[in-house]
Amino acid sequence: MSTTTARDRLVGAAQDLFAAQGVGATSPRAVLAASGVGQGSLYHHFPTKHDLAVAAIGATVDDALARAMRTLRSDSPAITRLVAYLERPRDALAGCKVGRLTSDQAVMDDDGLHDVLTAYFVRLLGVTTDVFRETGLPDDVARDRAHAAIAIIQGGYVLARATQDPDALAAAVRGFVGLLAPKENT
Amino acid sequence: MSTTTARDRLVGAAQDLFAAQGVGATSPRAVLAASGVGQGSLYHHFPTKHDLAVAAIGATVDDALARAMRTLRSDSPAITRLVAYLERPRDALAGCKVGRLTSDQAVMDDDGLHDVLTAYFVRLLGVTTDVFRETGLPDDVARDRAHAAIAIIQGGYVLARATQDPDALAAAVRGFVGLLAPKENT
Repeated sequence: MSTTTARDRLVGAAQDLFAAQGVGATSPRAVLAASGVGQGSLYHHFPTKHDLAVAAIGATVDDALARAMRTLRSDSPAITRLVAYLERPRDALAGCKVGRLTSDQAVMDDDGLHDVLTAYFVRLLGVTTDVFRETGLPDDVARDRAHAAIAIIQGGYVLARATQDPDALAAAVRGFVGLLAPKENT
Repeated sequence: MSTTTARDRLVGAAQDLFAAQGVGATSPRAVLAASGVGQGSLYHHFPTKHDLAVAAIGATVDDALARAMRTLRSDSPAITRLVAYLERPRDALAGCKVGRLTSDQAVMDDDGLHDVLTAYFVRLLGVTTDVFRETGLPDDVARDRAHAAIAIIQGGYVLARATQDPDALAAAVRGFVGLLAPKENT
């Protein structure tokens, strides 16, 4: 019981610190301090920083995928689900918790961590492709359109952070949704 | 004559090292070694690392804008120019030389450097908005669609790097262009 809680606290503290300052700049010692658990728990659950990072990034990815699935796999018509996913409120200036990791050198240089990111985007693209296919598109067109939809979100975050304009992500989404579902926009 | 050459070499070496390893991880000493110029030239032209970074990032931004303008401001019809810009060959796995800087903490923490990035994207979005306006769209729709177009490229780079799939950027562009200019695709 108490060990489960300590593990969860360590993972939660690592998720927060990774999001705030990157994986490379976060030491296990800082995670330990932020988590409030005893030092023995850290080394018991996560003998190395790599182990801690795999657990924390895995948890971030699982949360993000679960949220995406709730929207993309509801009972609404396919196009409504896609638009709802695209238009979901997002903290544009904070950046995507998963997407930002692709620019974290400590993640990209570690195959185990990189694989977690790859699996996230492959899965998200797969589910999004399925929903576009439901709208009646052929497989290859559905796949390309899914790449465009996910790229709009990731690129919108990049634009918002680059221009310090929190509306930049929403503008990119509006621009894409206007092409995707013009009838819903008029 | 020779001082111009030394300055250009220092800027070129800084551009290459920033692209390869990030601004934070690049020391003026490493730039000096890569440039092959004398130590006196470095401190003569760039008393601080900030001065060197402003010059190098400024040069990267100027190159990128000049390239974009050549495509976006040619004599072709507006939609043809937009598609040509979107479909331009890009080294997807290397990432966008400008966009990647938005994830470089050393850049984002330095207002002078961040301003150079902001100016780049504001200018690129402005010119792209103008071209969408030429296609007959109202101002606000043209602005949103320009955000979508630039987000597709930046997000496509993120997807390609995340999934290690060099086709991911091209797939996102195909998905967007298929919506934007369906007649050119059939």
